Amino acid sequence: MPHLDLSTDAVTLTEQLVNIESVSQDEQAIADAVEEALRTLDHLTVTRHGHTVVARTELGRGERVVIAGHLDTVPLNDNLPARREQRPDGDLLHGLGTCDMKGGDAVILRLAATVTEPVRDVTYILYEAEEIDAEYNGLTKLSASDPDLMRGDFAILMEPSDAVVEAGCQGTMRVDVRTTGERAHSARSWKGVNAIHGAAGILTRLQEYVARTPVIDGLEYHEGLNAVFIRGGVAGNVLPDECVVEVNFRFAPDRDEADAEAFVRDFFEGYDVTVTDMAPGALPGLDVPAAKAFIEAVGGRVNPKFGWTDVARFTGLGVPAVNFGPGNPMLAHKQEEFVPVEHIVRCEEQLRTWLTA
Amino acid sequence: MPHLDLSTDAVTLTEQLVNIESVSQDEQAIADAVEEALRTLDHLTVTRHGHTVVARTELGRGERVVIAGHLDTVPLNDNLPARREQRPDGDLLHGLGTCDMKGGDAVILRLAATVTEPVRDVTYILYEAEEIDAEYNGLTKLSASDPDLMRGDFAILMEPSDAVVEAGCQGTMRVDVRTTGERAHSARSWKGVNAIHGAAGILTRLQEYVARTPVIDGLEYHEGLNAVFIRGGVAGNVLPDECVVEVNFRFAPDRDEADAEAFVRDFFEGYDVTVTDMAPGALPGLDVPAAKAFIEAVGGRVNPKFGWTDVARFTGLGVPAVNFGPGNPMLAHKQEEFVPVEHIVRCEEQLRTWLTA
Repeated sequence: MPHLDLSTDAVTLTEQLVNIESVSQDEQAIADAVEEALRTLDHLTVTRHGHTVVARTELGRGERVVIAGHLDTVPLNDNLPARREQRPDGDLLHGLGTCDMKGGDAVILRLAATVTEPVRDVTYILYEAEEIDAEYNGLTKLSASDPDLMRGDFAILMEPSDAVVEAGCQGTMRVDVRTTGERAHSARSWKGVNAIHGAAGILTRLQEYVARTPVIDGLEYHEGLNAVFIRGGVAGNVLPDECVVEVNFRFAPDRDEADAEAFVRDFFEGYDVTVTDMAPGALPGLDVPAAKAFIEAVGGRVNPKFGWTDVARFTGLGVPAVNFGPGNPMLAHKQEEFVPVEHIVRCEEQLRTWLTA
Repeated sequence: MPHLDLSTDAVTLTEQLVNIESVSQDEQAIADAVEEALRTLDHLTVTRHGHTVVARTELGRGERVVIAGHLDTVPLNDNLPARREQRPDGDLLHGLGTCDMKGGDAVILRLAATVTEPVRDVTYILYEAEEIDAEYNGLTKLSASDPDLMRGDFAILMEPSDAVVEAGCQGTMRVDVRTTGERAHSARSWKGVNAIHGAAGILTRLQEYVARTPVIDGLEYHEGLNAVFIRGGVAGNVLPDECVVEVNFRFAPDRDEADAEAFVRDFFEGYDVTVTDMAPGALPGLDVPAAKAFIEAVGGRVNPKFGWTDVARFTGLGVPAVNFGPGNPMLAHKQEEFVPVEHIVRCEEQLRTWLTA
């Protein structure tokens, strides 16, 4: 079994974690290593749930915070093992999972090992299967089996966010916008109705869409309405009787799911709209004391979170949550992903300050 | 080996042909049966080329006409064996190939067997693989190996045409019209360019297209410009960087291939256009004496041919050609295809008159 050395620095620990391959649904080895390492720590209560490991301090503090990171990665792409690059402007660690998100996991493990008397009780969660369908997600499972383990006054997801706090998250929904027509041989096209031509209006509306950019708790969000797929066609000599435009709506957290759906249905009025997928956003929730103290500890800078993350899952449980982790989110899922060493160091320091000051 | 009885009537013979399964590239049995039946006829010179059978009179007449039909069908669709339906308004023969085009083949075989001294020399061609890619087509192969066997003053393709002469045929070309963009995560869509949205203009132009309907030799053609496929999309959360609209242009036979391409490139000016497929049309060619006499013999009525058929292949060899066969062309390739018995009888009678008068 691979072994993790929690007494080493967070960068070396990141490298150790990266070198334990853990593509989604293959997290046994990394979860075993994490569990073994955490069980040596007397100040933590450790439980295992599938390939999700939870470690808690139980000091009776007035506040509890959750710090979470997923252990899985997207599939291998000829980008293991980890490779360190020395650069004048700061070293980089390259390899699958360096950015998304084993740098963050290493910070969690270092804090768990070394902050034995935090001023706030802490629940550390290292979980499985974030990169695949929500039904497999360790937090989905934990919120069903042991929701108490996810409770707290505040939660931090250590998803890559350039080591800056990202608050709230936008919601996402997908709809199929459909036109129908009537098949005919293309040699006698006047006998049919071309459903692809009928989609002109859908694309024209999308092209003319102007994004709303509401400011919420001082953060400017940015909505988006985009065709992500289009399909239509029967054969090279047949007028198509159906065209489907799959549209993804990213909506600011001041809209709930019903609002978002009403907007999209209104936008595509006159077309057949089917909702295929929906996940609500999360309001920034920066007014709780633990959040305020945290943001102060990390320098006061907060960005809005555009993408959907498990932040929304905590918000759904009534726990305000933010993203804060090393790595550029734009590099996640890219073959060339890397994490700046400085991000890892800074995240660890700032969280340590907040947990001990 | 199945046996064909050329002394029976054309309707019964159609039924016999239909019951010899002959999906494209599985024509051995039917070609064997056809060859065997024709070889018993002393007034014909029979040759075999793959699964294409050619039978010629060699009477030294001043004119030679070609009468051709393909032996293959589209795939089975639970529509064999043949089934006769008696109706007050005329019997129907149902089943795969009844319409497209074993009714026509039966007429050819009956004429070959019984018109021993035609006033025009006749070349009967029963050929393979018309329903699949042109490279397998028996006429493509014959025009390469034995082009002399296809020569004549006039040709008749017995493709279903409601037992009315269809002259000329429209050309067909396919183009890919492409837009490009720039990928981005759909949560940060303002960082990319959506290629599907960019296709709005392509579909709008198609929607606004007005078909040209030129009159040529007294026949009104009808062009058509249609999207037959559209595709685009990378993932449910990614702005697509490419969208391709596959467009089929059906053009009247007064345009040649260069004209057709120029029209389409001009129509989609500003977009990337790639020609993927092209087959020229064929002018009606109704001014040759054999054609005039034929049209008179069948009642003088002529319709334009909108679809592309092997007529164009003969025209390419300098042989004016028309379609004239039993069955409604709209039923070709449909599971429920059938042929009215009366069409078969009428086609046989009219051709017999023309070949013997």
